[in-house]
Amino acid sequence: MPNPFFINSGPFDITEILKLLKINLRINKSHNIIDITDLTNAKKDCITFFHSKKYNEAVKNTEASYCITTQNLKDYLPKNCTAIIVENVLISTSIVTQKFYPSAIEDEFDDTAVDISSTHFKDIVSYGKNVLVGSNVKIGKNCMIGHNSIIERNVQIGDNCKIGSNTILRNSILKNNVTILDNCVIGKKGFGFFPVKNKNLRYPHIGIVIINENCEIGCGTTIDRGSLSNTEIGKNTFLDNQIHIAHNVKIGENTILAGQVGIAGSSIIGNNVKIGGQAGISGHLKVGDNVEIGGGSGIIRDVPSNSKIMGYPAQNIRKFIKDNK
Amino acid sequence: MPNPFFINSGPFDITEILKLLKINLRINKSHNIIDITDLTNAKKDCITFFHSKKYNEAVKNTEASYCITTQNLKDYLPKNCTAIIVENVLISTSIVTQKFYPSAIEDEFDDTAVDISSTHFKDIVSYGKNVLVGSNVKIGKNCMIGHNSIIERNVQIGDNCKIGSNTILRNSILKNNVTILDNCVIGKKGFGFFPVKNKNLRYPHIGIVIINENCEIGCGTTIDRGSLSNTEIGKNTFLDNQIHIAHNVKIGENTILAGQVGIAGSSIIGNNVKIGGQAGISGHLKVGDNVEIGGGSGIIRDVPSNSKIMGYPAQNIRKFIKDNK
Amino acid sequence: MPNPFFINSGPFDITEILKLLKINLRINKSHNIIDITDLTNAKKDCITFFHSKKYNEAVKNTEASYCITTQNLKDYLPKNCTAIIVENVLISTSIVTQKFYPSAIEDEFDDTAVDISSTHFKDIVSYGKNVLVGSNVKIGKNCMIGHNSIIERNVQIGDNCKIGSNTILRNSILKNNVTILDNCVIGKKGFGFFPVKNKNLRYPHIGIVIINENCEIGCGTTIDRGSLSNTEIGKNTFLDNQIHIAHNVKIGENTILAGQVGIAGSSIIGNNVKIGGQAGISGHLKVGDNVEIGGGSGIIRDVPSNSKIMGYPAQNIRKFIKDNK
Repeated sequence: MPNPFFINSGPFDITEILKLLKINLRINKSHNIIDITDLTNAKKDCITFFHSKKYNEAVKNTEASYCITTQNLKDYLPKNCTAIIVENVLISTSIVTQKFYPSAIEDEFDDTAVDISSTHFKDIVSYGKNVLVGSNVKIGKNCMIGHNSIIERNVQIGDNCKIGSNTILRNSILKNNVTILDNCVIGKKGFGFFPVKNKNLRYPHIGIVIINENCEIGCGTTIDRGSLSNTEIGKNTFLDNQIHIAHNVKIGENTILAGQVGIAGSSIIGNNVKIGGQAGISGHLKVGDNVEIGGGSGIIRDVPSNSKIMGYPAQNIRKFIKDNK
Repeated sequence: MPNPFFINSGPFDITEILKLLKINLRINKSHNIIDITDLTNAKKDCITFFHSKKYNEAVKNTEASYCITTQNLKDYLPKNCTAIIVENVLISTSIVTQKFYPSAIEDEFDDTAVDISSTHFKDIVSYGKNVLVGSNVKIGKNCMIGHNSIIERNVQIGDNCKIGSNTILRNSILKNNVTILDNCVIGKKGFGFFPVKNKNLRYPHIGIVIINENCEIGCGTTIDRGSLSNTEIGKNTFLDNQIHIAHNVKIGENTILAGQVGIAGSSIIGNNVKIGGQAGISGHLKVGDNVEIGGGSGIIRDVPSNSKIMGYPAQNIRKFIKDNK
Repeated sequence: MPNPFFINSGPFDITEILKLLKINLRINKSHNIIDITDLTNAKKDCITFFHSKKYNEAVKNTEASYCITTQNLKDYLPKNCTAIIVENVLISTSIVTQKFYPSAIEDEFDDTAVDISSTHFKDIVSYGKNVLVGSNVKIGKNCMIGHNSIIERNVQIGDNCKIGSNTILRNSILKNNVTILDNCVIGKKGFGFFPVKNKNLRYPHIGIVIINENCEIGCGTTIDRGSLSNTEIGKNTFLDNQIHIAHNVKIGENTILAGQVGIAGSSIIGNNVKIGGQAGISGHLKVGDNVEIGGGSGIIRDVPSNSKIMGYPAQNIRKFIKDNK
């Protein structure tokens, strides 16, 4: 799917990219690189990155032509993929991403937004006072948007969606029958940057937020968009109030998150999962299908499917209850 | 008190209700059922529900004429109350509630809301820019409403109340001298539904939020309205920022909740309770009077009055401190 | 620095202050007291307060002429400082503060705020729809303010600052290059009051919020202003979404707070600290420099510099991981 939110300034010749990274790698012929993306989504003529053995399954099957990686990791790459050896994979990736997507670092307010009553949506959307809509927004049939909400440029909303009041949608695609309640911020840049003394270095976030059919998102919830991959909420998944979903998180279908849950960056939650209030899930973890996580739990390790866990760190729920009688 | 927010479509004859539930119960004569409500509030000619032994004290004294319950629980009912035996009490209750209150499932934005400056409140309320007020709102003397706030239809606000900016009030009654700070959402539907694969089933929330005299509610706090009973905050109770109070919760008087506390559905908190920051209380629990709960605690069991507890799960606070030196 | 937000009604003669406190202390001559402030910031001719041995280092060097304190603590005072012995230091301090700053108890909406397009900022600020600006606001060069945001009276914003949408700034000073994302409330009064049955007693909050150069504040975050001292965020410190920073907190430079962290009142966090998501820090604590705190931790004691801790209560992170395998 072409990214509707961030304009790709490419293609760039691989020699230009290597120069940018100050890499001295002998390349025989010119080669137009069309995009930068993660291991899984990269196609031929793309550049990708590989910075941790955690992703050694994904790297095997990447179709990318080039991969930013380290000396230690380069032997995991498949034959089709030429290694670009750097010292810090993430910083180099950030530099190349910024080349392709120069406008994806900051979240400036959408200056194309106008009052919905001055747009063609006035006849097809049911809307409140002071609703703002940016350029190139798409809204399906039978939708409602509450007072003071802001639908920023290029956002896509399916049929039968209900957006509450005081809510901001940005860089997001909502499928049909999605409900988003009041005071949410969906699609802002993630909390991803390189800590640098006196001036941290923000990297671009070109991922988006995809919310699938029949989801409901509670009041005051924030869902950040992805950096290079997307943040995605599966079908019929319900989120309660004041939840925070960080960048690159994927949540499966028919999953339920109670109030004030937080999920850190890049974690993957399965289908039919139930997560109790205030539970927290660390970054880069996998939680399987049919898992039940008790309220207040702190998840710091992968969770196999069909587990019922609770505690901090979480353990078997029966053991937790028994040990703490 | 008649419910000012949700219009009762009843009465309905009991035979019509039984037909809706596909129940084959021999009823000798027609009987108009006027309302559905919880065990405690149900009067003669009302229908109620009883789904857990937890409520066996309440069921003894119910005045309801009919009660949706199970084979196992039916013998707890008093003589005045005829059992309607079903497989799933909550789903059947939802079906009957939806019959009485068809408009209480969704929280659509209030399309009756208009700028306060075009209403009679312009002379009696001190208000900011872009304040919206729905139909049939009542506001007492000497009140203030900050910029961009929305007071939805039928909301009642007492005397000397102060509402901050960017705040939404819905299905709520505020008594005198209540302060609600900025960015709150008070009175949205609770996070209550039946998980159904591919399309969860929302049930009606016809409860309201009652905030009693002298309360203060901090910024970014959400208080959900009840499903069949009300969510209520007692007199002179203060809530800090970013607190989440789920549906049906009752909090007593002179109680203090620090920032980011979360209370799950239907729990009851006593008077003179102090709850430290980020503490969480599971659903359907009772916390007694004069209880002190340390910051970060996770409460998963009832708490007797006068306890001082801390931890996850919470234990005696002295023991917690000592064990964790 | 003179306080630009709260107007000092003083000076008041010391005999007038003593009368207010119903203190019978023989004072030989009239003495104009110019201000009330904390031990560290008090100058000659100021009154201060000292209520806990925790501050026995600060008290030694105070330049204040008078200090509200107790019989037990009075001997810690330096010679230049006359003790005013009271039963409850904080209540007496509140009474005197209210004398000097009668308007600092409530956070009423800013009724001086007008649409930015009717101010001189329309030519020097890039702004969205429905932006409100109060009287005497200062905004530097090259700033942006998103839709529906409110910059209340006297707020000072440096150069190159970006304010998101639906955000409220009050009693705050932002230095250069500060980014504040959407739905934040910065500078409201802290959650500080004296619990009194039936009607809690709010005390004035005359501290402000200072956010230094290059900071970023995530969506839905609340930062409360101080009571007598300020709440301050150091240079290049980044806060993620839904964080709560209570009154009087000081956070150092180059520090990183992940989502949903909460810091209770008056705690001091050092430089180069990393705090994982949902961690909570109790009030009146000191966290040193270069500390790493794992996600979900509960900090209830001071933390020495260079520690890596996790857990609730937090302990050495390696021990926590090992003990919980």
